[in-house]
Amino acid sequence: MQLGMIGLGRMGGNIVRRLLRDGHTAVVFDRNTQAVEALVKEGATGATSLEDLVSKLEVPRTAWVMLPAGAITEETVQTLGSLMQSDDCIIDGGNSFYGDDVRRGQELKGKGIHYVDVGTSGGVWGLERGYCMMIGGDKSAVDRLDPIFSTLAPGIGDVPRTPGREGRDPRAEQGYIHAGPTGAGHYVKMVHNGIEYGLMQAYAEGFDILRHANAESLPEERRFDLNLGDIAEVWRRGSVVSSWLLDLTAQALAGDESLEDFSGWVEDSGEGRWTINAAVEQAVPATVLSAALYRRFRSREDASYADKLLSAMRKGFGGHQEPKKS
Amino acid sequence: MQLGMIGLGRMGGNIVRRLLRDGHTAVVFDRNTQAVEALVKEGATGATSLEDLVSKLEVPRTAWVMLPAGAITEETVQTLGSLMQSDDCIIDGGNSFYGDDVRRGQELKGKGIHYVDVGTSGGVWGLERGYCMMIGGDKSAVDRLDPIFSTLAPGIGDVPRTPGREGRDPRAEQGYIHAGPTGAGHYVKMVHNGIEYGLMQAYAEGFDILRHANAESLPEERRFDLNLGDIAEVWRRGSVVSSWLLDLTAQALAGDESLEDFSGWVEDSGEGRWTINAAVEQAVPATVLSAALYRRFRSREDASYADKLLSAMRKGFGGHQEPKKS
Amino acid sequence: MQLGMIGLGRMGGNIVRRLLRDGHTAVVFDRNTQAVEALVKEGATGATSLEDLVSKLEVPRTAWVMLPAGAITEETVQTLGSLMQSDDCIIDGGNSFYGDDVRRGQELKGKGIHYVDVGTSGGVWGLERGYCMMIGGDKSAVDRLDPIFSTLAPGIGDVPRTPGREGRDPRAEQGYIHAGPTGAGHYVKMVHNGIEYGLMQAYAEGFDILRHANAESLPEERRFDLNLGDIAEVWRRGSVVSSWLLDLTAQALAGDESLEDFSGWVEDSGEGRWTINAAVEQAVPATVLSAALYRRFRSREDASYADKLLSAMRKGFGGHQEPKKS
Amino acid sequence: MQLGMIGLGRMGGNIVRRLLRDGHTAVVFDRNTQAVEALVKEGATGATSLEDLVSKLEVPRTAWVMLPAGAITEETVQTLGSLMQSDDCIIDGGNSFYGDDVRRGQELKGKGIHYVDVGTSGGVWGLERGYCMMIGGDKSAVDRLDPIFSTLAPGIGDVPRTPGREGRDPRAEQGYIHAGPTGAGHYVKMVHNGIEYGLMQAYAEGFDILRHANAESLPEERRFDLNLGDIAEVWRRGSVVSSWLLDLTAQALAGDESLEDFSGWVEDSGEGRWTINAAVEQAVPATVLSAALYRRFRSREDASYADKLLSAMRKGFGGHQEPKKS
Repeated sequence: MQLGMIGLGRMGGNIVRRLLRDGHTAVVFDRNTQAVEALVKEGATGATSLEDLVSKLEVPRTAWVMLPAGAITEETVQTLGSLMQSDDCIIDGGNSFYGDDVRRGQELKGKGIHYVDVGTSGGVWGLERGYCMMIGGDKSAVDRLDPIFSTLAPGIGDVPRTPGREGRDPRAEQGYIHAGPTGAGHYVKMVHNGIEYGLMQAYAEGFDILRHANAESLPEERRFDLNLGDIAEVWRRGSVVSSWLLDLTAQALAGDESLEDFSGWVEDSGEGRWTINAAVEQAVPATVLSAALYRRFRSREDASYADKLLSAMRKGFGGHQEPKKS
Repeated sequence: MQLGMIGLGRMGGNIVRRLLRDGHTAVVFDRNTQAVEALVKEGATGATSLEDLVSKLEVPRTAWVMLPAGAITEETVQTLGSLMQSDDCIIDGGNSFYGDDVRRGQELKGKGIHYVDVGTSGGVWGLERGYCMMIGGDKSAVDRLDPIFSTLAPGIGDVPRTPGREGRDPRAEQGYIHAGPTGAGHYVKMVHNGIEYGLMQAYAEGFDILRHANAESLPEERRFDLNLGDIAEVWRRGSVVSSWLLDLTAQALAGDESLEDFSGWVEDSGEGRWTINAAVEQAVPATVLSAALYRRFRSREDASYADKLLSAMRKGFGGHQEPKKS
Repeated sequence: MQLGMIGLGRMGGNIVRRLLRDGHTAVVFDRNTQAVEALVKEGATGATSLEDLVSKLEVPRTAWVMLPAGAITEETVQTLGSLMQSDDCIIDGGNSFYGDDVRRGQELKGKGIHYVDVGTSGGVWGLERGYCMMIGGDKSAVDRLDPIFSTLAPGIGDVPRTPGREGRDPRAEQGYIHAGPTGAGHYVKMVHNGIEYGLMQAYAEGFDILRHANAESLPEERRFDLNLGDIAEVWRRGSVVSSWLLDLTAQALAGDESLEDFSGWVEDSGEGRWTINAAVEQAVPATVLSAALYRRFRSREDASYADKLLSAMRKGFGGHQEPKKS
Repeated sequence: MQLGMIGLGRMGGNIVRRLLRDGHTAVVFDRNTQAVEALVKEGATGATSLEDLVSKLEVPRTAWVMLPAGAITEETVQTLGSLMQSDDCIIDGGNSFYGDDVRRGQELKGKGIHYVDVGTSGGVWGLERGYCMMIGGDKSAVDRLDPIFSTLAPGIGDVPRTPGREGRDPRAEQGYIHAGPTGAGHYVKMVHNGIEYGLMQAYAEGFDILRHANAESLPEERRFDLNLGDIAEVWRRGSVVSSWLLDLTAQALAGDESLEDFSGWVEDSGEGRWTINAAVEQAVPATVLSAALYRRFRSREDASYADKLLSAMRKGFGGHQEPKKS
């Protein structure tokens, strides 16, 4: 079927490519005209503006917004809402806050426009592996879009089937779910990313301990000079901690175990924060997920005010002089 | 080659089975004579005591101890040490503290006996999937035992190969590594389990938040009644959080999403604690790994003294009366 | 000067009492007429409704709302706003979210009404010790109300003066500050409570460790049967951890060290949660404050879903049967 | 009474001074002869070696070791043990690990020598405020030393008495306790410092949030430019978070609120680490105390290996390029 795509970055462009390869058609728009041209060469129809894109879509229209969460997505959805009509459908496939979805869905419902939020995981690997999608919205709209989701999803592949799932929604095994009403897709994606932070931090701390296993402060007979790349590799086979993140860790450590190319400045996106806010709102103790997020915050501070205050107190009660940071 | 196995529980028994299936021979001993008889039926040679087992092994002997860490393993290793002679080899495949390995290795070295520590991951799935092994000890001993490790390991299987590993130790891809001198095997296994706790807790918290997404305390328009089984399933395909632990989660949730059969009393083993001790000794901030361990401690308390003291303070400064725990 | 007080609970009633004792006058209202009558006997003027209260106040009027944060405070402020006029002043002395203050302040500014938010610490001890107040609002309004704040504050008392404060705002030493524009008072109070949770949890964990110093799992020569009441008492004198919370701890432990009267169900109020939200919004790593809040959440769960999921995973990979919770 | 003091640093020297002022006598030794001379001028008897010190003490002798925990203390106690005789007493007033006390106490018991461990809090303020002491050892030895402890302790002072303590050990109110057998003193001091870390971190995080209350990333109407010095000061009066650590914070912030003189490199001593080890051994969830310790570890890392690994994983799954650390 036909899809309009707004935003042809790493994610949006590859989504279009995966659709085209499977026989779908696409009308594409991006402020960056080169990105549009590149996809036109691959078979998409180019658009020069949102108006142009909407005019080139067959009714009922489907427009997928794949832009950074926040002001630009908000503005684009609002504009599309003003250009489109009853029974058309707007998809937000970015990383929007689920509360914004709920609000937008309500607003567009007044005009009869469907709003579908799609949490998308897969990153740069999606073109090849497919995209894992968590979808929120009206059943009718989600069902109508099924050919698109079905193409984008990874499919069963060679992942072993989960015993006991007979009779359950078969879409989950294909790699996409209709999670619930508007907002539910991004909600599930939000928690997905919250978990992701926790998993990553667990590996990071473990390898940090392995890396320090030969610290000079340790008794000599208990020091080990470990090969972290081999350790990551061996855990990929038959161990309890095997995962895709471990696969990526093994790749990184196979390259340069010292990780010297990285400064250790770790970004976070909204989902990790919203997960904590959701946990606090629900009174769910999210100890590990919060700790993981905070470590990212801390990674970006050179000298924390909190730490300075600790030093000031230590000087106050013990006359301790702070050593110089090397 | 021939192996003596002491301890025929879930792990030890299946290790022998996997060896027998691949053409190795085994002399087996367990206090539980039924466990011995069962393996004799499958082709092993039974022993009635440690002395008997040692006498039935060809020199240089190899005896694998697969018993609970602590006193019973210590005693067994000591007894074997007194019965065995130069160039024999004792393997501790249990979950011993690596510091104990270092000490035992030193003691046995005086007699010329090799001591090899093997951290083994794979649990009840090892017979079928193979065992992921992290090995510590002298190179000569580890090399001599290679036929055994090679059989027990999972092998390359259908796990995609890690780019950039050309020219590296090929054993890692097969699922076993020689991590370093005596103690290094259990050290790496220790950190493996520390990571395992962190990963598990990350999933647990995420699903806890999903489970509470329809809490009555939330605004009605932002409540979601989510299908946790489908969510776990969909994340298995193409998402960043896919892992073997997630596979197991999907299986558990496919059965009964309420998890009513579980009381939530979560055991911990020594490795998780030793990991924290190691991190503290190295001054490595193991925030997430510690938080995960503490949640297990907390899961086993009905009414924490710490919490009671909070209530006592609250009463003291605010006159707050503590609500009754339902 | 004259103050109208709405809400005569533990806090509101005692604030009026402290004002009356120092020569101020008060018009008081509460839905509970007995609370009104009690204060009338002590010299206040009673009111039968918000309208009655407003009518009995001299212009420019000052009305202090001391009600639970949320709907009831919102409604009361809105009603007062409709009854009052330019240059009148509404004080919210409860535990409101500072964002609500900002909004209300904006709304009332249109009518020329001052809105002042007062974060108040002191609990049941305020009548005797005075109230520590953090105040937000226009300078003109805060200055006009100074006689009230001055009476309510604890004063310098016998707390040693801080060296280096010469020339600084003298109100801080008296126990009240003008923290900034509308919202700043509750913002500072919010963080105050966030810190409070962290401090309480630090003591709670420390005494928990002391309490378990004679656990049977420990080696016999390293077990100690400690007197927690004496320990709390001794730390009150000359130690680095002395504080008012420790004073309260010493009192509680002097009574019954087992704390058997407490179930360990620990409530939390909005401030602790908002502090975490603020930290997340600012990207400040609030590790300890979050951990403290989560321990309260956890204290109120009998069997956590997260813990059950851990057990389910452990059964999945290790065949571990969960012990029964005693 | 007479006391021998070994180690005349900040703590040891002032302990001697406080004793001399109250009429006790002292024989003093330090490798630094100037430190000895300074105290001789104040009335102490100097010694040139441990042998000389022991020879100048009247029997039964009392020697207080006030040296850094570890090798130097160990060696000094061993040497004193060889020089002293039955019924003499060795005090370790430093920050030793309580397990070392237990061992030393056992060893010296064979010779009839008493070993008393004294956890001492008070820092540079002890000379003036007195020392809060937690004492472990035999009752007979601790009782014999009471005149010394009584002089060193802060005394009741103007700290309000705790209701309900009638009939309890009066020493606690004076600022010292006999906590239990050998090791108990340092055990209690260890937990004291563990708590101290937690309290400090709670304040540090709270003020960090206050400091960032005007971050440009926040919506303009919710930004506050707060005076942290005034906030610390106001909380000292009547608030729930008042404490000695807050007094010190107020002093530091009265000087330079930016804390520019501090780099934020925060040391930790053994007690914080041993507290975590003790908690782990007891299975007590010490979430906040651990988090506080880890923040100190992290403060001393410029670029954490853990953080680099996070960046490597992010690059792996999302192609994320790490921003440069400013």
